[in-house]
Amino acid sequence: MSKYWSPAISQLTPYVPGEQPKVDNLIKLNTNENPYPPSPRAEEAINNYPKERLRLYCDPDATLLKQALADHFQLQYDNIFVGNGSDEVLALAFMAFFRQDQPLLLPETTYSFYDVYCKLYDIEYRQIPLTNAFEIDLEQYNQANGGIIFANPNAPTGRLLELGKIERLLQNNTESLVIVDEAYIDFGGASAVELTRQYDNVLVIQTFSKSRSLAGLRIGYALGHKNLIEGLERVKNSFNSYPLDSLAIAGAVAALEDDEYFRETTGKIIDCREWTTNQLEALGFDVVPSATNFVFTCHRSLSGAELMSYLRSNNLLVRHFGKPGIENFLRITIGTYDEMQELINTLKQHPDISS
Amino acid sequence: MSKYWSPAISQLTPYVPGEQPKVDNLIKLNTNENPYPPSPRAEEAINNYPKERLRLYCDPDATLLKQALADHFQLQYDNIFVGNGSDEVLALAFMAFFRQDQPLLLPETTYSFYDVYCKLYDIEYRQIPLTNAFEIDLEQYNQANGGIIFANPNAPTGRLLELGKIERLLQNNTESLVIVDEAYIDFGGASAVELTRQYDNVLVIQTFSKSRSLAGLRIGYALGHKNLIEGLERVKNSFNSYPLDSLAIAGAVAALEDDEYFRETTGKIIDCREWTTNQLEALGFDVVPSATNFVFTCHRSLSGAELMSYLRSNNLLVRHFGKPGIENFLRITIGTYDEMQELINTLKQHPDISS
Repeated sequence: MSKYWSPAISQLTPYVPGEQPKVDNLIKLNTNENPYPPSPRAEEAINNYPKERLRLYCDPDATLLKQALADHFQLQYDNIFVGNGSDEVLALAFMAFFRQDQPLLLPETTYSFYDVYCKLYDIEYRQIPLTNAFEIDLEQYNQANGGIIFANPNAPTGRLLELGKIERLLQNNTESLVIVDEAYIDFGGASAVELTRQYDNVLVIQTFSKSRSLAGLRIGYALGHKNLIEGLERVKNSFNSYPLDSLAIAGAVAALEDDEYFRETTGKIIDCREWTTNQLEALGFDVVPSATNFVFTCHRSLSGAELMSYLRSNNLLVRHFGKPGIENFLRITIGTYDEMQELINTLKQHPDISS
Repeated sequence: MSKYWSPAISQLTPYVPGEQPKVDNLIKLNTNENPYPPSPRAEEAINNYPKERLRLYCDPDATLLKQALADHFQLQYDNIFVGNGSDEVLALAFMAFFRQDQPLLLPETTYSFYDVYCKLYDIEYRQIPLTNAFEIDLEQYNQANGGIIFANPNAPTGRLLELGKIERLLQNNTESLVIVDEAYIDFGGASAVELTRQYDNVLVIQTFSKSRSLAGLRIGYALGHKNLIEGLERVKNSFNSYPLDSLAIAGAVAALEDDEYFRETTGKIIDCREWTTNQLEALGFDVVPSATNFVFTCHRSLSGAELMSYLRSNNLLVRHFGKPGIENFLRITIGTYDEMQELINTLKQHPDISS
C-alpha cells in the first residue's frame, strides 16, 4: 500500500497463475501446458531468425502473423487481431467492449481472470451459475447486459457447448458483444470462428499456448468482424505498440504452417484424455466430459485438497481451486501417456483408492 | 466505429510509432534504434535456449531478469518491475499511479505516448511548455498535481536535466509520484536511479530497446521503492500474467551481463553523435544539445517537411513531427559512422545547403 497508488489499485485482487516450479523432477499437470514440444518448424524459425535484427523494433502490426492467421482461417487480414497471449487479448477486449452501463454476464465457474479484468476496469458483472452437470446454460443469458463472455470449452470444467446454442444466443443478443474464449477449442470442439463470418456481435479468442505448444512465447489472437478488430487495435495502439516480439512472430507463423504436427499432437492428447478418463473412473473418480487438454474430476470419497497434496508429495503437480462448489475437484492436465500412467499408478497406491 | 465498442473507445487517438519499412535498402534513422546488433551473449543465450521448453509458460515473475537487474543496479529484488517494453511499463504505471483527482503534469513537448495513456484512462493532464531552448523547467511543476512525468533526457529534443534539479523536485513534491522515463539515459546522462534509494516518490523507467540493442525483443523495467513496485505488480497481475516470453528473459539477462559490449557500443554512438552534430552545424543546422542516441535539429532556411522528403527520396529515413513549434525540426537517430557520413554527404548535395 502506498499513498502514491491510484485509489482503485488497493481494491484489486490479481489473478494467480498456476505454479511454475523451479525444480525439474516434477510431472507438471497444473497449468494445461502441452506435453509435446512446439513444431520443429517453429524451433527452426526461431533458430534461423537473424538475431542482429533484434536491434530493430518488431513490426507493430505483426503483419506476417496476421496474414498467416487470415489464410489459415480463410478470413480477411482485417478480421485478425494479435496480442501477447490470449490474456492480453482478453485484457484489451474488456477495455474495448465491456465498459458499458449494463453488467457483463459470465459463468460463475469459468476462467478466473474474467472477474479480475472487471475489477481492474471497474466493470459491473453478473455471474450466472452453471447447471448441476457443470454446463453453461445460455438460456439464462437472455437478460439485459453490456456484454457476455464465456470460455468454450469452459475452464476448469472442460465442458463443450454446441455451436447451435451459441448461434441462437447471437441471434437473441444483438445489442451487445459476445466473446467466446476458445483457448481449448483445438482438443475436439467446433469453433465459433464460422459464426464470425455471419454475425458482427461475436469475437472469438484463441491462443498458441495450448494446442500449438508455445505457452512460453506468448501469442494470442482474436477473430471477428473488422469493426470489432478496429476497436481492439485502437486500444492496443493506445497501450503498447509492439506487444509481440520478432521471435514470437516468427515462431508463431512457422507453428501455424505445420498442420501435420498440430493434428498429430492434438490427436495424441485427445486419445490420452479418453484413456485417462476411463482409468480415473475405474478408480472411483467422477470425470466431467472434457473437450480440452485437461480433465476436471473428483473422487467419490477423498477430498480435493487431500488428493492434491498426496500427488504433490509424489512429484505430481495438479491444480486445485479452493472455491466453493468445486473444492473437491482437481483439474489435471493431460500429459504424455507415460506421465498419465504415472499419475494413475500413483493414485492406485493411495491406501483409500481401490482399483 | 461499432455499437459494440465501449463508449470511450471512439475518443481515443492511438499512438503512431515510427515507420518500420518492409524494404531493406533504407538507412533507418527514424525510430532511435541502435545501429549495432545486440551483444553476442544475448544471441547465444537465445540460440542456446532449449526450444522444447517453450511449451511451458514462462516464469510470470521473470525472476532471473529481476535478479540480474537488482544486481546490476545494486538494488533489492523488490525494487524491480519488468514489462513488455518500457511502453507497457508506462501503460501499467499510468494505471497504477496517475488515476488521481488532480491533473498529471507533463512537458508540452515530450514522448507523445504520455497523453495517449491519459486519454485511454481518462486522466486529466496539464502540459507545461518547454523553455525557448527546449529545456524542461521543473520550477514550473510546483503546482497542485496528481503526478508528474517527463523523459530525461527528453524526447524528441534530446536535452538532459541535471540530477540536482530532479532531486529538488522530489523534495518539493512529496504528495504525488514523479516518473522519470530514462529510455535514453545510457547515452551520457546521470540516472535518477540513485534517487530511488532515498526517495519513495520517484519511479525510474528504462528499456533494453536503445542502449542494449534489443528493440525487437520488448523488454522494459521500472526501478523504485518496493511499495511502488507492488502497485505495478498488482496492475500487471490483473492484466497479463506473463508479458515477457522465455526468449526475451534469456536474451535480456545475457545482454545485461555484457558490460564491455554495452560500453563499447554506447561509446561509439556518443562519439558519432558529437561528430554528426559538428557536421550538421557546419551545414547550417541548429542542433539541440543531445544526451541521447538522436539529434533534434532544424536547418536555418529549409523546412522540416522538405528535408524529410528530400532525405527519404535518397533512402534516408528520419522522423518529422508535424506539431506546432517543432514543425521545422527533424529527429535523426545516430547510426553507424558510415550511415551518418551518408546522411551528411546527402545533405551536402542538396542545392540549397552550402558546405
